[in-house]
Amino acid sequence: MRIALLQADPTVGDLAGNAERLLSLAHQAHVAAADIAVTTELAITGYPPRDLLLSPAFVAAAEERAAALPVPLPMLIGTPLRPDEDGQRPMNGVLSVGNGKPRRAYAKQLLPTYDVFDEARYFHAGRQPGLVRGAGGMDLGVTVCEDAWQAAGLTPAAYASDPIAHLAALVRQDVALHATVNLSASPFHHDKREDRLHVARTAAAHLGHPFLLANQVGGNDDLVFDGASIVAWPDGRAVLAPAWSEGVLVVDLNRPEEACWLPSEAHDALRVGLGDLVHLAPGEAPRNDDNGLEALANAVVTGLADYCRKSGLERIVLGLSGGIDSAVAACVAAEALGPDAVHGLAMPSRHSSQHSRDDARWTAEALGMRFSEIPLTTLHDAAEQDLGAVLRSGHAVAAENLQARLRALLVMGHANAEGAMAIATGNKSELAQGYCTLYGDMAGGYAPLGDLWKMEVYALAEHFNARAVAVGKPAPVNDSTCTKPPSAELAPGQVDEDTLPPYPVLDRILRAHIEDGLDRARIVEAGDDPDVVRDVLARLGRNEHKRWQMPPAPRVSRRAFGQGWRMPLAGRHDWRD
Amino acid sequence: MRIALLQADPTVGDLAGNAERLLSLAHQAHVAAADIAVTTELAITGYPPRDLLLSPAFVAAAEERAAALPVPLPMLIGTPLRPDEDGQRPMNGVLSVGNGKPRRAYAKQLLPTYDVFDEARYFHAGRQPGLVRGAGGMDLGVTVCEDAWQAAGLTPAAYASDPIAHLAALVRQDVALHATVNLSASPFHHDKREDRLHVARTAAAHLGHPFLLANQVGGNDDLVFDGASIVAWPDGRAVLAPAWSEGVLVVDLNRPEEACWLPSEAHDALRVGLGDLVHLAPGEAPRNDDNGLEALANAVVTGLADYCRKSGLERIVLGLSGGIDSAVAACVAAEALGPDAVHGLAMPSRHSSQHSRDDARWTAEALGMRFSEIPLTTLHDAAEQDLGAVLRSGHAVAAENLQARLRALLVMGHANAEGAMAIATGNKSELAQGYCTLYGDMAGGYAPLGDLWKMEVYALAEHFNARAVAVGKPAPVNDSTCTKPPSAELAPGQVDEDTLPPYPVLDRILRAHIEDGLDRARIVEAGDDPDVVRDVLARLGRNEHKRWQMPPAPRVSRRAFGQGWRMPLAGRHDWRD
Repeated sequence: MRIALLQADPTVGDLAGNAERLLSLAHQAHVAAADIAVTTELAITGYPPRDLLLSPAFVAAAEERAAALPVPLPMLIGTPLRPDEDGQRPMNGVLSVGNGKPRRAYAKQLLPTYDVFDEARYFHAGRQPGLVRGAGGMDLGVTVCEDAWQAAGLTPAAYASDPIAHLAALVRQDVALHATVNLSASPFHHDKREDRLHVARTAAAHLGHPFLLANQVGGNDDLVFDGASIVAWPDGRAVLAPAWSEGVLVVDLNRPEEACWLPSEAHDALRVGLGDLVHLAPGEAPRNDDNGLEALANAVVTGLADYCRKSGLERIVLGLSGGIDSAVAACVAAEALGPDAVHGLAMPSRHSSQHSRDDARWTAEALGMRFSEIPLTTLHDAAEQDLGAVLRSGHAVAAENLQARLRALLVMGHANAEGAMAIATGNKSELAQGYCTLYGDMAGGYAPLGDLWKMEVYALAEHFNARAVAVGKPAPVNDSTCTKPPSAELAPGQVDEDTLPPYPVLDRILRAHIEDGLDRARIVEAGDDPDVVRDVLARLGRNEHKRWQMPPAPRVSRRAFGQGWRMPLAGRHDWRD
Repeated sequence: MRIALLQADPTVGDLAGNAERLLSLAHQAHVAAADIAVTTELAITGYPPRDLLLSPAFVAAAEERAAALPVPLPMLIGTPLRPDEDGQRPMNGVLSVGNGKPRRAYAKQLLPTYDVFDEARYFHAGRQPGLVRGAGGMDLGVTVCEDAWQAAGLTPAAYASDPIAHLAALVRQDVALHATVNLSASPFHHDKREDRLHVARTAAAHLGHPFLLANQVGGNDDLVFDGASIVAWPDGRAVLAPAWSEGVLVVDLNRPEEACWLPSEAHDALRVGLGDLVHLAPGEAPRNDDNGLEALANAVVTGLADYCRKSGLERIVLGLSGGIDSAVAACVAAEALGPDAVHGLAMPSRHSSQHSRDDARWTAEALGMRFSEIPLTTLHDAAEQDLGAVLRSGHAVAAENLQARLRALLVMGHANAEGAMAIATGNKSELAQGYCTLYGDMAGGYAPLGDLWKMEVYALAEHFNARAVAVGKPAPVNDSTCTKPPSAELAPGQVDEDTLPPYPVLDRILRAHIEDGLDRARIVEAGDDPDVVRDVLARLGRNEHKRWQMPPAPRVSRRAFGQGWRMPLAGRHDWRD
């Protein structure tokens, strides 16, 4: 009675690569004497495949490849299934392979269509409960991700059916099952592990048998998945696999204490942070003594690492200003690709302070990355000469933006010449206020801090410092970087608080509006200054062109900007009445 | 028996402004002695409101504002409707106002969830046929957009029900109706007017009474709507309202020949192209003797004009290279905002030819727009000095990109100083090949040609020339601009065909892949060179960072890039098997 959960890190659209990855994990499971292996949701295509699913050729190729996998043990494989009838959408399904002829075991019933999910756009909903007989000698219930969330009361709206309740009813009618499995692609956000544990324990309690949830890990598009697959028993005991790592969780249904974790043997396998199994007694919660900071750090590192690996990018260039954002971005880049693959450019202008130049160099040296200093003087003078009359007579912001864009020019010149990717170092607080320059500091193929509030960036700075110190290395973010007043240094004596409220206040207002959906009146009611709230909301979603051109960032917040990051035009966040 | 169709140009999210706009049109309808007025779909919110619909406060405010409109005649108003039950989504509905107490007349039954539509994400589907009794003395059937497309066989997949067939069955059961109305927000693409006419004629024939389709006009987000509202009679006669203009179509059901068009009296009303009613005899097709070029020109002008008006932008800056793309983009900008509001910058570098400098000036002078020439020399030398070693040792593309980015720096400097928006001038063919520079010629808040193939840009050049000549003005696109070999002029003697196949070939391959969904084998089968096809498809979706950061463009093609323009990351368009 040994089940292996394949916690894989697939690449969206790479059917051949994903098949190879699944086979490699399946062989590890087979060696560990598992009776059956279970993949994550849509493991053969990677999640989310989005509009690739509109291509019938893609769906057919995925299903055929899953069915043809030369598996070393019986497997349940997540794959899209071709429609049963003309004019129907495909299904989000599960193939049973290696247990006689490949056959369709299940089609997902609950299709989430909210937040980052759009499954009603792509899939036809199944209507039958998932039952697999005699696979690896076991009889199993089969569910896919959302199917199990309704029973736990964690869906935003009620579905018409509840697959867990349905399976539980069958069990009560003497349909004997050894366990129920759940193939998931459940993205990360703060406290998501606790939610997912509640889902698994609730399902196991309803069903009266073990519930096993295999979760995708790694970054795909703008989503980052933490893995942390779960096995829960009806009495509340549970085992959690490591987050942020690819591997196999093998569990004997009758001996929870013998669960083991096999790190992936693939040469390019994701492995971020420390990977230990967590065993929980009934009712016990996983430890969270750092307010989720370790998870947040691992999430942003995973997002950047996977973005680069899956896009074929091996080197990173970034501007190092001596400020907190670029210092933390450098920490993330150095962890994601190794410090040798990262090149930091300091580009001081006539407005840059000596401490900024010192702090930039400090971070680069502490991390062991490549560092160059290119004073902006010549280029700045030449540009001001060409634009002199225009700058003198126009809006002051034009001159400030000019410096940020000259820096982007140098960063992109290095990136193009060296075959590297430039990253943007901005955070969500300043981006949400348009306190940044389009084609300037916003330039870059990826924004590792783009979904973090400013105060989270400060917290991560301390966290990366503590990580470095713990292994005997110098702290990469200098004390003065953490304590000096934040400044863009684009004008003499300029500090962020000339324009923005203090960041603790700004973050609180933005969170209330974006994450909790509160309008101006409700935020003021909660105690913030009415004028400050008005100004913050008025700046929301603004920049010179009234739109974002944001590099992607991993989604790590409870609620992201929603469609906002994808296509936010005039009127999206500021409807009027 | 006079019905007015309010062909409005709402702004997404602007409930107060949209209400005012609808009232103004309603007063025009009232003065024209209409018995009832019918708006477009979700007219009070503008279409598509997208994730604004996730806010219950927004939905409530929209419905309340529609219900409270002080209408001068009975009206059917498109608005979201609050859910009937907790945990349910809102409905895409119709309120009957001004005919007794405001009441819910209908909820849309068929929710399109494909291509640019995502209505299953937002709405709960209605299940009842739409019937309104005694409004303006008439009994009417009510449908919303997609509801009428199933009967015409023009939906990609079959829905479980057919609202037109349902209404027709009621009519056969002696439910007497004078007409059926359809509140639409049906975006433009090539030949869309013909499709919509087929829908209206099919519905009228099925129902045995007149069918009236009120369509939204104008640009919202990445969609452009052409209006061209339709009234069709069961015998096949039809009247089409003008496209690209806001106004009111008033029709007496019994006297098609007396239909009249009232241009909107709003001071900022959209009015692009020549607005005449089209009367069609049974079976007659609308004239299309220019292969849709007039419509295409009006679509791109409408998109830019509405983007600017709705975003509060009054001035445009663009780079004028002397090439075909920037010349046509200048024509579009001059028509959208007037030539006085457009500033063209020529920024010749050491690689620019004299004819390019002459052609740039020609276009600016012919259009009567502001023109400046800023040689790139000083800035180019300064940048090469700072980046010298890097450029000499690295990829050659870095030096080419440098020039494009220096130009963007100057364009953005002018835009910021003058409070204007920069526009990007690229076309879909080169953008799809990554034959463009990120933060260089791709910089800009809007790309008016971003959804046009290169050969369409050539055709539009001739069209804008013919338009100018017809009113006694000089042709804005010089002959030499149209006939010289396309060149980015970023290296000595460089022409586009050094890198790309000839544009007629490139466009054919891209269309086959993107619009018709053909893979490499199928395109080669159709006759193109296998190596050329391979290279074109390999370049698809590539740039330095393996992603787009595209300014929005109006969607005018039959099938756009799909989600591609919104969030196209690695693997989106190039799945592997």
